[in-house]
Parts: sequence; C-alpha cells; structure tokens
Amino acid sequence: MSDLQTKGAAFAQKIFDDIREMSRDVQGVSRQAFSAKETEVLNYLTDIGRGLNLEITEDRAGNVWMTLPGQDRSLPAFVSGSHVDSVPQGGNYDGLAGVTAALTVAWWMREVGFQPKRDYTVLMMRGEESSFFGKAYMGSLGMLGKLTEKDLNLKIRDGSCTLGEAMQSCGIDTAAVSGGQPLVDIGRIAAFVELHIEQGPTLDAQTQARAGIVTGIRGNIRHKAVRIIGQAAHSGATDKPYRHDALMGFTELVQRIDRAWDRWLVKGEDLVFTVGVVKLASSAAISVIPGEVTFSVDIRSLSADTCQRFHDLMVRYAEEICQERGLKIEFDPALLTAPSGVDAALSDTLQKSAEAEGIPCMRLASGAGHDSAVLGNNGVPVAMIFVANQLGSHNPHEAMKIEDFMQGTDILWAAVSHYDN
Amino acid sequence: MSDLQTKGAAFAQKIFDDIREMSRDVQGVSRQAFSAKETEVLNYLTDIGRGLNLEITEDRAGNVWMTLPGQDRSLPAFVSGSHVDSVPQGGNYDGLAGVTAALTVAWWMREVGFQPKRDYTVLMMRGEESSFFGKAYMGSLGMLGKLTEKDLNLKIRDGSCTLGEAMQSCGIDTAAVSGGQPLVDIGRIAAFVELHIEQGPTLDAQTQARAGIVTGIRGNIRHKAVRIIGQAAHSGATDKPYRHDALMGFTELVQRIDRAWDRWLVKGEDLVFTVGVVKLASSAAISVIPGEVTFSVDIRSLSADTCQRFHDLMVRYAEEICQERGLKIEFDPALLTAPSGVDAALSDTLQKSAEAEGIPCMRLASGAGHDSAVLGNNGVPVAMIFVANQLGSHNPHEAMKIEDFMQGTDILWAAVSHYDN
Repeated sequence: MSDLQTKGAAFAQKIFDDIREMSRDVQGVSRQAFSAKETEVLNYLTDIGRGLNLEITEDRAGNVWMTLPGQDRSLPAFVSGSHVDSVPQGGNYDGLAGVTAALTVAWWMREVGFQPKRDYTVLMMRGEESSFFGKAYMGSLGMLGKLTEKDLNLKIRDGSCTLGEAMQSCGIDTAAVSGGQPLVDIGRIAAFVELHIEQGPTLDAQTQARAGIVTGIRGNIRHKAVRIIGQAAHSGATDKPYRHDALMGFTELVQRIDRAWDRWLVKGEDLVFTVGVVKLASSAAISVIPGEVTFSVDIRSLSADTCQRFHDLMVRYAEEICQERGLKIEFDPALLTAPSGVDAALSDTLQKSAEAEGIPCMRLASGAGHDSAVLGNNGVPVAMIFVANQLGSHNPHEAMKIEDFMQGTDILWAAVSHYDN
Repeated sequence: MSDLQTKGAAFAQKIFDDIREMSRDVQGVSRQAFSAKETEVLNYLTDIGRGLNLEITEDRAGNVWMTLPGQDRSLPAFVSGSHVDSVPQGGNYDGLAGVTAALTVAWWMREVGFQPKRDYTVLMMRGEESSFFGKAYMGSLGMLGKLTEKDLNLKIRDGSCTLGEAMQSCGIDTAAVSGGQPLVDIGRIAAFVELHIEQGPTLDAQTQARAGIVTGIRGNIRHKAVRIIGQAAHSGATDKPYRHDALMGFTELVQRIDRAWDRWLVKGEDLVFTVGVVKLASSAAISVIPGEVTFSVDIRSLSADTCQRFHDLMVRYAEEICQERGLKIEFDPALLTAPSGVDAALSDTLQKSAEAEGIPCMRLASGAGHDSAVLGNNGVPVAMIFVANQLGSHNPHEAMKIEDFMQGTDILWAAVSHYDN
C-alpha cells in the first residue's frame, strides 16, 4: 500500500473499531433501525464529516447527506454510501463498509486537496434491514415517500412499538415518508455507487480478484409453503407398490430440480435455488410413512424470465412426479420480487477505474437486496462494488479484511476522481 | 356363503358390534392395556366361551384360555387367538378379529357337533399394543415370565401409573410375570395360529385372494436421528459451487436409496425403507440454505441379512454423497429387531386347508410385529392368517369386510379340523 493508502486504511479502521465498540451486543453488533443507537452512530459519523468540512443535511426520512462541494455546483452530485443499521447481533461491516468507504474517499480528497468537478456526497441511510420490523429498505423508500400506512403500522418484533412510532422517536416526518412524493430531488443525483461486503463466498474464494463489480441484483420467486399430500401408512406393513410417500415425492422433486439447475448453469443462466424450510405432519413418526410434506421455495436470478421459466419447470416436474406417485400437490401463491438492473455506463466506469488502478476485479451478481435497488428502480443511475468477506453476513462471525476493503475503496476513489474526465 | 357360514358370520358380527359399542371412544375404540375396559371386554368374551361350554382358565399374566376338550386330552392343544386391547381411538378389528375368529371356530364345532382329536383352545391376550406404556407384547411376554423390572416401572403416557400398578389392578402377579420362568407350559401347545387384519394394502388390492398366509414377521434396523451437517448460508448470495446444503445431500441420499430399493425388489429381496421423520435446524428460513438436517431411518425385512446389507449400502451412499458435497454425517446407534420366522409345516397346513376349502390366498410378509413372534421365538410352532382390511390400522378409520373375515376364519376352521388327519 502507498503511504496515502496506509493512512486511509487507518482512518477507516478507526471508524470500524469505534462503531463496533459503540454497538457491541454480546456476540456481534446491534444497530436497530430507527433507534437511539442508530442515531448515536449517525451522530458519530456526522462529526467526522463535520471535521472534513462537509456540508451536512438530514432529509425528512432521517437519512444524512454530507457533501464536499464540487467546482460546478449546478451539476447533479456523485453520491456514495450505504446504511448504518444492522440486524440484531449481526456483523459490523454489512452497511457500515459502504458508509466508511464513501467517507474515506472524502477524507482522501481533503488529504490530497482534490476538488471534484461536481459535488461529491456521502449518503448515510437508516433502516435497511428487515429483521426488526419485517420490512426492508425503509430509509431509502422513506426518502422517496414510498412507505405505506400499512408499513408504518408494522410492529417491531418484540411488539413494543410500530415502525411509525420508532421513526417519530428519531424526529422523522411520518406523514412525508408515506406521502407518495419524493422528499429529495432525484434529479440532483448523477450517480449512486454503493460499496458492500459480498455476503457470499465467491470473491473470498479468489486469489486475484478480491473486489467485484455487481452485474445486477437478483430478483426472486418464492413460495412460503408448498404442500405435497400422500397417504400416511404403516412403515412395516405397506409394501413399495402401495405407498404414497409424500417425502419420497419431495426428495425426487428436489433432486430433479438440482440436476436441471446444473444444466441451466452450464447454459449460462444466472440462477440459485433453495429449499430452506421443510416440515412433516405433526403425526410424523419413525414407523409412519409420511402423508404430508410442506416446504418453501426460493428461486433467484438476475433475469425475471429465468426465474419464471425455472419456476414453470419446477411446477411441471412436481405435477409429473405427483401423478406417478399418486400424490397431490398444492402451491401457495408465488411471491415475486423483480430483479434490479445496474447502470451499464456507471458500471463500466467502475470497471475502467479498477483497471486504471491495476486492481483485479470480477463481475458478479448480488444475491441479496440493497438500497441501490430501490434507488435504481426509481430512476437513479446506480452501480455497486462488492468486497470479499468471510463467514457470510447477518451473523456475529461475519468478517472482512481491511486490505480487501481498501481495494474496493480504491475503485470508488478512482471512479469519483475520473468521473468527469 | 353356506347356511352355516351365514350363521357363523352373524355370531362374529354380534361380537364385533357389542365390543365396538362397549369400547367406543369419540372416533374409533379405546381398549387400554391392563385397564378395567380391557377386563370388561375379556369378561364379555369369557361369557360367550362359557355359553359354548368351554373350560376357562386365566394365567397369572391375566390372559384367558378357553378350551374345547379333544378326544385325547393327553395331546398338546391346537391354540388360536390374539389380543383384546387396542391403541387409543384405534380400530375395532386389530386384535379382536383374531379372538373372534378363534371363538367362531369353537362355535362351529359346537354347532356341527365336531370334537377334535386334541384340545382346541381360544387364547385371549391382554396388552399387545405399545401406545400406552411404550412396550409391546406385554401379555405374551408376561405369560413367559419375560417382562423386566424396568418394564414394570414404565409410566403410562399420562403419567398416572406404572405398568406394574396397572397389571396389579387387573389381579396380575407382577412378581411372576418378571420372574424369568414361563407361567404356562409351552410344551402343551402343539400349534398357535393367529388370524389378524393385514394392516397394509396388499390383500385389499387383490380381486381373488382376500386372505393371506404369513411368510414371516419382518425385523428392522432403525435410526432415530441421523444428522447431516452442512453450512447455513444466504440463499441469494451463495452460488451453487460454494454451497454445502444439508438438505440437498439428504434428498440425494434418499433418492439413491429409493432406486437401490427398486433393484433389490427386482432381485427378490423382501424389503421396505422409510424416512418417517425429518427436521431442520431451528434457524431454518426461506432465505437460508439449510445447515443441518436430522432424519429417522426404518429398514425392514424378513431377512436380518437383507436389513444389514441394505443398511451398509445406505451408510456407504451417505458417506459418498457427503464427501462430494462437503457435508458431515453422524449416525446415532442403530436399533435392531430380529425378524421372526413362522413354522413351515404349520403354514403349509394352512395353505392346504385353504386349497381344500377352495379359498384363494396368497403368501405375504407381516410388516408389523405380533404376539405370534413372541411365542414363535420361544419355541411354539406359530403361523398367521391375514385378512384384507381397508384404511390401515391404529386409526379410527380402520375397516374390514365381514365376508373377508369369514374367508380367513374358514381357513382356520379347516386347519383345526384337518390338523390330525
């Protein structure tokens, strides 16, 4: 690392250490959405921005914008940031890495005396995680006026308050966030780049490319509870030809899907498939052939078409297998989330910036959702930088190496500095 | 049906109807082992035996023996019967069909004035079902002195008493039933034939053979909780090559076993395989790749060798699959129950009796356990007659047709009457 990078790494490391200490909770950290702890973390970060002489404003949804003025203030800004909240007893880097990277870039500008052509803004958002209120992207949806009355009435998981009450305790205008009108001028954002830990193992498995440029945010088709219904019977007294074993049908279905998934990947489709929940009837016992299996389905892809076609294939397989085995199948309504694109030109800018800096990086999909998807789906040109991390996310063991973080931050710095050249 | 058969069917039907009424419990019937209800049913049946002028004795384990004296009282007896208890809210015919058939044969002998060469004895046993005390075959084990102190201390499922206390309330000598010495002279039993509903669908699927001669009672190898351990991870952010999905490993294992099972059946092996229980970790969720699956295994066969070899094959498959998928597998200790043979000569006698009567019947395995296995494993020549039934057993919907019952009873009658010719 250059001397500047070493100093930048120390700047970032102090932020990570201080905020970890501030939000420590048994194992890991807890920064509950729209809580005093979230506000405390925002205040700490705002103080750093103030120290860098950034212009600080808070939108009516409680998100904080910290701007380093550009040479031409009439131009829309280059914005970078992420969310400051966390899941309960989660990791320190999910969200905070993106805020810290954006702030480190501002620090660099001040350190080397660089003034960009357009404003450069660090955006620190509240309430991205769904763990507490069952609703994700509350900060970004709020600033677009896109929360609903129903959202505001969601109870926190211990039942002690509603989302609306929690927001009000942070001074947020709950009428405005659910008013249907954006609280910020989207037209004043030229680009939004979010750096985030990958939350998956792909980059960490690479020896060269420890950073990635996101090709899109996967959408999904989900079922909460598909039921296969067979016939419970005595496990000793019922010979194979007379069985209608719901579990056997289920396992055959999953295995056929698993083999099809392999073929689709070979064809180049982006696709992940997961059965996360399986339950048998309460009467299940060692000596009873299962008469009923209930299971969840989660199909994700960058392509809504791929999701739909793979879902259709699953339904066809299920019907074939159930007919052969004398079973019935009932699908609960499918829940759809559309994939979210990234801005191709902005992503190319990130790619070229990485190349210019000599930083190896790869293109990869985002399997998890992000505030970037909300902004991207509302007309903001967005792109994302992923950084290798260890041990997943949403758990206290989540880890990230500072040198990997600095590679991602370098890409962001290069992209901002070359943006108008 | 002949006039005699019609009258015999009416005799049997009245027993079924009266006892169903006597033991009705919401849906189905309840005749709890070693309860006042079980005693009431035994007394009802004993009265019928008394009306047929049978010699009645009760052994110290509480089972009732009703004998029609033969011409040569020095010969060991031909014994037939079954158990009078039921599972809670079970069906009326499981057990009672065998007692009623044996009693109907005695009725026939009196009706036509037939005296067999040797004594013919109706044996009515208590406590065969394990539902209340977690222990099966208590009546037959008790009369062999083979219950243990540990058995007698078993609590009934609502915790209100022990097996020993329940037995004492029926006047049973609990020191004797756990004394290690038979309470009856096994050498005085020439043959024991038990008629029973099949409890499976095989006979009911036949248009011709509605009765069966049992080829043996299946033994089993069981595991209560085999664990496959993988790695929980984000369902969207974890691409296929990086997954260690415990549920995918489980479904592959079950499917490989299912295909091997087909091949073994084609080779002529007697075999059933069931996974009756499956559980995921408590953290299971739609968007989490399963990190752990726990499941039960039940392998049954007439051949202990087949059970063992199929078990070994399953373990080998499991190890291969887990190695390929980066999973671990932990088998809890296997629980073994030996298969039980039937007496070949006695079974041939049943077969020839059926042929002589022109009753089509088939040979089939018993998947469930029976008192016959206890007696057979203790030196009594045993054989079993199965009768087609509907809707399984151990549930209130269990059903049986009186004409199917009468075919099985006809075989028993023919076997007794031709036994010494």
